[in-house]
Amino acid sequence: MRRDYVHGHHRRERQRLHDQAGALVDLLHGDTKYPKGSRVLEAGCGVGAQTVTLARRSPGAAFVSIDVSAASLAAARRAVDLARLDNVEFHQADILDLPFASASFDHVFVCFVLEHLSDPAGALARLRGMLKPGGTLTVIEGDHGSTYFHPDSAAAHAAIQCQVALQAEAGGNALLGRQVYPLMVGAGLEDVRVSPRMVYVDASRPDLVDSFTKKTFIAMIEGVRHSAIAAGLTTTRRFSAGIRDLRRATRADGVFCYTFFKGVGRTVVSSRPSRSAA
Amino acid sequence: MRRDYVHGHHRRERQRLHDQAGALVDLLHGDTKYPKGSRVLEAGCGVGAQTVTLARRSPGAAFVSIDVSAASLAAARRAVDLARLDNVEFHQADILDLPFASASFDHVFVCFVLEHLSDPAGALARLRGMLKPGGTLTVIEGDHGSTYFHPDSAAAHAAIQCQVALQAEAGGNALLGRQVYPLMVGAGLEDVRVSPRMVYVDASRPDLVDSFTKKTFIAMIEGVRHSAIAAGLTTTRRFSAGIRDLRRATRADGVFCYTFFKGVGRTVVSSRPSRSAA
Repeated sequence: MRRDYVHGHHRRERQRLHDQAGALVDLLHGDTKYPKGSRVLEAGCGVGAQTVTLARRSPGAAFVSIDVSAASLAAARRAVDLARLDNVEFHQADILDLPFASASFDHVFVCFVLEHLSDPAGALARLRGMLKPGGTLTVIEGDHGSTYFHPDSAAAHAAIQCQVALQAEAGGNALLGRQVYPLMVGAGLEDVRVSPRMVYVDASRPDLVDSFTKKTFIAMIEGVRHSAIAAGLTTTRRFSAGIRDLRRATRADGVFCYTFFKGVGRTVVSSRPSRSAA
Repeated sequence: MRRDYVHGHHRRERQRLHDQAGALVDLLHGDTKYPKGSRVLEAGCGVGAQTVTLARRSPGAAFVSIDVSAASLAAARRAVDLARLDNVEFHQADILDLPFASASFDHVFVCFVLEHLSDPAGALARLRGMLKPGGTLTVIEGDHGSTYFHPDSAAAHAAIQCQVALQAEAGGNALLGRQVYPLMVGAGLEDVRVSPRMVYVDASRPDLVDSFTKKTFIAMIEGVRHSAIAAGLTTTRRFSAGIRDLRRATRADGVFCYTFFKGVGRTVVSSRPSRSAA
């Protein structure tokens, strides 16, 4: 697994991830609740932006949250402590080399992680192996190709494309959201159901203009400015024009659209030969 | 108003519009119902694909459906007769030159029409003038820039771009959906609320693969093949490659996404000075 994280690990990025979680909690996680007594693996918890939401929404479930980055885990632990949650256990571990027995979890949750992996199919297959029969696997991913806005702007699309290119260079795929369904089916999950979660932002929704368009999306693109210029993907001038045009879409007559994809599938409850014969 | 209709007026196109309406009825019209006794203007009814749905869902409302094309109106009349509906009256008329008294309708409905007009803002302002105080105006439009799919394909995007270019040449805008909010606010409507209606299609939804991706969207793009080649926008080979790649997205591991935008706004109920002062 590639350890490069296109967004970086700075404090501003941690704040962005927490802002993002705040704005999108209901849209993305409103329908995720795990029953009392269930053991849930959160694979790739990062700084804990989703961990806090998950653990709070399912207080009776026991979460095991893993990440490859010790620094991210430390931040996640602090976030969980700050939220006074005691149903999360953290482990530093790689999704492709999990230190758990197979079929040892009731559910698996993976959010904004597959997009950063060079082998998302392999990762999903391994995560599926962690599930007990009948357990669910939940995947949430964005898709930068779902971004469009008014006024339209080639410069803004080019700035977004810098992020897509850098993420691809690091072995990831910023357009992964649309592939959640085939990836989950390919990993052998059953009853896969994918639903798009579109964030539509116009001036009648000032909270989303601020928390999503500005503080989540534009902040994310702005975050690759230096890497993109250093990599020769753009110039200071062109990148600034793109950011300016993205900001233009946050004005009173502007519109901004982005879509996340959430998939839920389950492992087959193995039927016994005697039963199938019956 | 331009009278060129980018999709043409052939029988196959009429069938496509009816298939489209069938597939999308709930998604687009499920929340549109007009009260008994209300008088509703449907502006640009075309072949009646929406008229039948509207009139059936609001049996107590009286619809006045207009279109500039006599041929389309005749088809719409047949569709309404076939559905045994008696609450629709047809008039051949131009949105920019309406033969009705101002403030003579309780509600106005306009669907897949603004995208074909060179002055959508002017059309909306005129339609707003038809409304009694407190009446609602409903707008539904697609946006071809909201189209993305898996596997991704530059050839498929180029084929879609042919449709966008032809529509622009005819004075329209195939990317209008994202502008519904600013257009409605600009036309002086109040309490404008726009909601995206995203059509997400994967193999777990075979009805949509057939009725939407194949029979609505790909059929629409396929419909501009000859005009696009004649206009020098593409070649037979490149266009065919684009259609082939769009079809590729209808296979078991394919995904297709498209978004419509629905806006509802109302005219102000003029407040009397005595009341504001109270």
